[in-house]
Amino acid sequence: MNPIDKLKTLLSRLPGLGEKSGMRVALAIINAGPDFATVLAKAITDTSAIHRCEVCCDLTDELRCSICSDARREPTICVVANPQDRMAFERAAVFRGRYHILHGVLDPLSGVGPFELTLRELLERARSGDVLEIIVATPATVEGDATALYLAHLLRDVDVRVTRIATGVAVGGEIEHADMSTLSRAIEDRRVL
Amino acid sequence: MNPIDKLKTLLSRLPGLGEKSGMRVALAIINAGPDFATVLAKAITDTSAIHRCEVCCDLTDELRCSICSDARREPTICVVANPQDRMAFERAAVFRGRYHILHGVLDPLSGVGPFELTLRELLERARSGDVLEIIVATPATVEGDATALYLAHLLRDVDVRVTRIATGVAVGGEIEHADMSTLSRAIEDRRVL
Repeated sequence: MNPIDKLKTLLSRLPGLGEKSGMRVALAIINAGPDFATVLAKAITDTSAIHRCEVCCDLTDELRCSICSDARREPTICVVANPQDRMAFERAAVFRGRYHILHGVLDPLSGVGPFELTLRELLERARSGDVLEIIVATPATVEGDATALYLAHLLRDVDVRVTRIATGVAVGGEIEHADMSTLSRAIEDRRVL
Repeated sequence: MNPIDKLKTLLSRLPGLGEKSGMRVALAIINAGPDFATVLAKAITDTSAIHRCEVCCDLTDELRCSICSDARREPTICVVANPQDRMAFERAAVFRGRYHILHGVLDPLSGVGPFELTLRELLERARSGDVLEIIVATPATVEGDATALYLAHLLRDVDVRVTRIATGVAVGGEIEHADMSTLSRAIEDRRVL
């Protein structure tokens, strides 16, 4: 296989990139020139230093990630499915506590059971006595909701408050364009004004 | 900058990948494990062997690309804007001639003039006497059409037939969903049944 097709084949295996977009990215790397290719190859090789934080299981190149090393963070844990979701909360800057990255949600059909998630580490943190509240911020999907229920069950004997992020109509979102399940949830979880 | 952000920043520079998709691809590379990262980094490094074919200017790791080395190809040249368009024709297997890759179309607003394209190489091939017809298959856009007219002008004194691929309603496409310019072109280029 020639170098272009080989690179395309590897890139096509990544999520969100198909055959066509894999080829587009491969050609873009080639067009960017040998200097860019060298820097990119090194950046990819350097990711071998990445592993899971020993506390929250987020990806980091240090023993503990920067958030777990930050003593000013509040004793609340926001449980998220993956690093991207943690980044979304940090970008929004709406939460001053800590995180726990599950690295997935329960999804028996795809072979993801409790042992594939970082539940042992979460239970350990919950039992340490340093945590006041655990906010489950898994996605508002069937799998995300099931994971949230499983966590509530898992943590029922631990002296910690377990909550779930609110679901409903997105702020600024039009009622007209919200899907049926969102509207149903928005009615169900209505609150007194 | 940590290795994840560094990789994301580099990937975000590629066309079609923004900040979010760059991060998704970066995390996918990390999740795929160190073996995949090693293979991918090597595949990227290996693209340094890629250069332009001395005949058609397509990307290849040999002196001449496989199509230019194939003696059975017909003496017709299909002129395309980039390697992806050449691949699309080859996938469709509708053309048994050779290609010429311009590496762009004339676009003065983006700083692409005649000297940025491989026109000197095309003129040389046209003048060699080995070519019967040059089919201009640049995209059916303002820039693609302008490039086609420029090529016709450039090749007017060369003894070779210069043609343009047909434009009109796509085969299998609904009239209802075709855009105005396509419908206008379909009427304009109508043929006798």
